[in-house]
This record gives sequence, structure tokens and C-alpha cells, in this order.
Amino acid sequence: MSTEGPAPLARLVAELSRLPGIGQRTAQRLAFHLLRAPDEEAFALGEAIREVKEKVGLCEECFNLAEGPRCRICADETRDRTTICVVEEPGDVIPIERTHEYRGLYHVLGGALSPIDGIDAEDLKIAELLARVGRGGVDEVVLATNPTTTGEATALHIAERLRGGATVTRLASGLPVGADLEHADEVTIGKALAGRRSLD
Amino acid sequence: MSTEGPAPLARLVAELSRLPGIGQRTAQRLAFHLLRAPDEEAFALGEAIREVKEKVGLCEECFNLAEGPRCRICADETRDRTTICVVEEPGDVIPIERTHEYRGLYHVLGGALSPIDGIDAEDLKIAELLARVGRGGVDEVVLATNPTTTGEATALHIAERLRGGATVTRLASGLPVGADLEHADEVTIGKALAGRRSLD
Repeated sequence: MSTEGPAPLARLVAELSRLPGIGQRTAQRLAFHLLRAPDEEAFALGEAIREVKEKVGLCEECFNLAEGPRCRICADETRDRTTICVVEEPGDVIPIERTHEYRGLYHVLGGALSPIDGIDAEDLKIAELLARVGRGGVDEVVLATNPTTTGEATALHIAERLRGGATVTRLASGLPVGADLEHADEVTIGKALAGRRSLD
Repeated sequence: MSTEGPAPLARLVAELSRLPGIGQRTAQRLAFHLLRAPDEEAFALGEAIREVKEKVGLCEECFNLAEGPRCRICADETRDRTTICVVEEPGDVIPIERTHEYRGLYHVLGGALSPIDGIDAEDLKIAELLARVGRGGVDEVVLATNPTTTGEATALHIAERLRGGATVTRLASGLPVGADLEHADEVTIGKALAGRRSLD
């Protein structure tokens, strides 16, 4: 026999270890857990996977995740339609929503410009963003791409192409709340210095 | 809208975070991965879960995992049927098989004695082990329960009840290969001292 137990178990371990950050040992632990778990619990996970794949698509307006043609934020008539926050991935919408500080709409690019990886402007939803702004009614575009090389390049590229169309802003860069200077990297401290604000 | 995105995604995150060692953030990362993954890959995981729950049961002889009435080790006629290695869980069979040093059969108890957790001898497959040994043909029972309080208690309990039935041995305790004394705990060093062997 294989040293890994029955074939269906080995298959489950193999499928689990394809997940990001799940190694062989973790996959084995998870597989044993699912094997021992009540049928309902194990099947609920399989069912949840099927449901996500079948029911969740992209919003036709902002390209965030959506259960129908439009996501719940675009469909929410109470949101401020004059502001659009541009993010790289659908997962970036969640932390911003959690702040409860933002009441505008979003635009999900589907990534960041990275010529090295072959990701050009046409691979992102940039033309669709320009079209949204072009239809009018948008006062401000908040660029909330990541503070990384690719995220910064994407923000600069979009700011350039939006020039004159709407006010373009960028999330502040600086020291995260709760950080201490001693352990902050020099690039972050540099950004915090450059962006220093008067307390008057 | 909920800050966590579409309901099916939130459900998948909830199901994933029920898995041991998978927190909220990891569950979210995994859910996004599955959402972006090709349909075949995501469905293959769901299918593998279903298959494990439907096809994998316990061997009627040794209570290891099995795809039919008997596990592949018990069904393998080339294995040495005079030796039985007793382990706590089906997962313990795998590391022993990987050594390729053991050619006998197994007996999976389904846990270890732990009166505090309400696990008594009747909750484990101990009577079934005594019956197997009682049917004759077994020369040696290797107790390979974990070197923990509960594992040791279980080994002592079984050794007591098997007295006279077969030779009973216990896996050696001591320093793991590659360890250094400086970082070993005192109980392990104590076991290593007590089990010291002559080099002559």
C-alpha cells in the first residue's frame, strides 16, 4: 500500500496542499479533521466551495465580487456616487469597508501594472474606470492601490490618464498607528516625513 | 451590505475557518484563492471531500482507515502477521510506514486513555486488541502510543492486560536524532539517561 493511506484520503491531501500556504503536513491534518468531522460539516465546506464558484461573479459596474449583475455596494442607493475608490483586488474592498469611514463607490482593477509579469494597462480595468469617470457625476477618484512599487506605478499611471477628469487623491503613506519608529523601515519613515502635517 | 462581500463568499470563509489552525484571515485568503482558481481545481477539492466521507471507513480487523472492509495493510499477504503495532490514531500509521522498517500489522486504538476527558478503556479498541491476540499467532505487540502522559498510561494499561499473551514492547524514548542536549527538555534527557545502552 502507499504509505499515505487510502486513495481518497491521499487525493484529498493532494487537493488541500494545492491551496496557498498549505503544506503537506497541514493538508494531512486538515484531511484527517474532515474525515473525523460530522458529515454535515465536511459536506458544508464542499457545498460552500461549489456555491461560491457558481454564484459569485464580478459586478458589471465596478468589478467587485457580486452575486448578480451588480455588487451590493453599487446597488446600494445610499452610497455617495460622486466618489470612486480604486483598489487592486476585491479583497482590498473589505478592509476599507471595515473602517466605516468611506461611503463612496469602488472600482476594482483586478491587479496592478507589472510589465515584468506581463501585466499592462489593458489587462486591468483602467479603460472601464476612465469610461465611468467620463460619464460624469464623479468628483473625486481615491487611488487606494497598495503602497508597493507596482501599486504606486499603477496609481501614477491612472492619475496621469484621469488628469482634468476629476480630483485624484492617493491614500496617505506613513507610520501605521501603533508602530514605533525604532522598528519602522526607512522608506516608511521617509514617506511619513515627506507627508508631515502642521498641527496648528 | 455586509463588509465581508457576497453571502456565498462569507459562508465559504466561515466554513474554512472551522478547520483546525485556520483563522479568519487565512480562511479569507483561501476563499479568494478558490474563487479565482479554475472551476476544475475548486470542484476537485469539494469532490475529494465528498469521496473521503463516502468511501473511507475503518478496517474491521485493525481499525485503521480502509476503503473496504479491510485496510490495505491487513489485506497485504506479505506482511508479518506475528507482530502488531498499537497506535493511537490512523494518522500515526503513516509516519511508521514511512520508515519502511516495520513489516507487521497495526492496531489503531482511536485515542488514548484520558479519564479527565472521559475516555476510558471501553472507548478505545482495547478489547478488540485482546481478542486479536487471544486468537493466537501473535508473538509481539509493539506499543507505539505517544510518549505523553495519556499515551504512557494507555501503554501501561494494555501491557498489564496483555501479560502472558504475547511479548509486549514499547518504542524507545530518548533524544531525537539531530537534537542537541542544550535545547532538550529534562524529561527527554531523563528518559535518554534511563534508557542508555552499552556500546560494547
